[in-house]
Amino acid sequence: MDDDRFQQQIRFILEIDKLKTIIRRTYLLHADRAENTAEHSWHLAMMAILLAEYANEPVDVARVIKMVLVHDIVEIDAGDTYFYDATAALDKHEREHTAADRLFGILPGDQGKELRELWEEFEAAQSADARFALALDRFMPQLHNYHTQGRSWVEHGISADQVLERNEGMAEGSLKLWECAKSLLADAVSKGLLPPKDAERKRDGAPEEK
Amino acid sequence: MDDDRFQQQIRFILEIDKLKTIIRRTYLLHADRAENTAEHSWHLAMMAILLAEYANEPVDVARVIKMVLVHDIVEIDAGDTYFYDATAALDKHEREHTAADRLFGILPGDQGKELRELWEEFEAAQSADARFALALDRFMPQLHNYHTQGRSWVEHGISADQVLERNEGMAEGSLKLWECAKSLLADAVSKGLLPPKDAERKRDGAPEEK
Repeated sequence: MDDDRFQQQIRFILEIDKLKTIIRRTYLLHADRAENTAEHSWHLAMMAILLAEYANEPVDVARVIKMVLVHDIVEIDAGDTYFYDATAALDKHEREHTAADRLFGILPGDQGKELRELWEEFEAAQSADARFALALDRFMPQLHNYHTQGRSWVEHGISADQVLERNEGMAEGSLKLWECAKSLLADAVSKGLLPPKDAERKRDGAPEEK
Repeated sequence: MDDDRFQQQIRFILEIDKLKTIIRRTYLLHADRAENTAEHSWHLAMMAILLAEYANEPVDVARVIKMVLVHDIVEIDAGDTYFYDATAALDKHEREHTAADRLFGILPGDQGKELRELWEEFEAAQSADARFALALDRFMPQLHNYHTQGRSWVEHGISADQVLERNEGMAEGSLKLWECAKSLLADAVSKGLLPPKDAERKRDGAPEEK
């Protein structure tokens, strides 16, 4: 019985090694490759330790750390859904819930429940801990984009308007980080790293050039 | 003043992105590449969450998580010192302390001190939290080696005797994980994944083949 529990834990630990092969759209600052989700999760956990003082409300840092460590594990089955991809967003919820069933189901009941609840809390963004964790998760790619000449924004034809619209929820977790993100974005626009508005397509419906 | 602090924190967060480019000797389970230290640190933190019940003494899981997140940041400057490389071990202490001075020195004083003390505690292995964190750090590469046909052991000509000798300190943090590691190692020897002893070189002093 005891050993069943240990075997379930080890099976999960081996399974989540796959998170190191899930590739995000964000680029590393010091190497010419995209980031994977495992290293992204480590980086967020470090941010949680260092930036907790900028949460709008008091947060339980240890819970925020756990939350960001776990928040993307469902991507092992569901894949990384690009933040600005409206089509992929349509079935994201369903894909990720199916993934959560399988992945957290590998663990002993109590631990599967704990991790799943942390993930669901993060997704719902209804607690102070989750709102702050979400702000970190939104802030990080903007920092990386700013410091890689807007590389991922450019590759996906993202405008500053889209960045603002999709990220303004950050303000509910951390006004300080949201102000910083807006200021980096304004500077990126002034440097020509990305256009202020998705102007042409919206105005005259002209087809995109290939 | 306040903004100096914020800028120091952001500078450190950008700097530690480099940990994603520090390559270890351990291979991933589901991709044909070696692991980097950032994703390794994430994986250890997940193990701390899931395996804390096997620590010999009661541990503060939140502290263990922080400790493993931080424990290898010095590798950004000092590089990854291969666990079985006795020559590289000679100046490891000096290299890593110089690295700690520079890296933790980027942070505001209070936070640099907190992270440095966590790292020093890990290195000294004199607390229950550190002994358990160290056991996790030893256990993980053995798990990965076992599940990749001993790939890294084979590449570096490591024998089971060496693995036992270098890892027995694990027992001070977690007897359970040490028993598991020994049992995996015995199985690996029985499958011929690595030799039981580094026999030839020790017995007759014959030079290594190139």
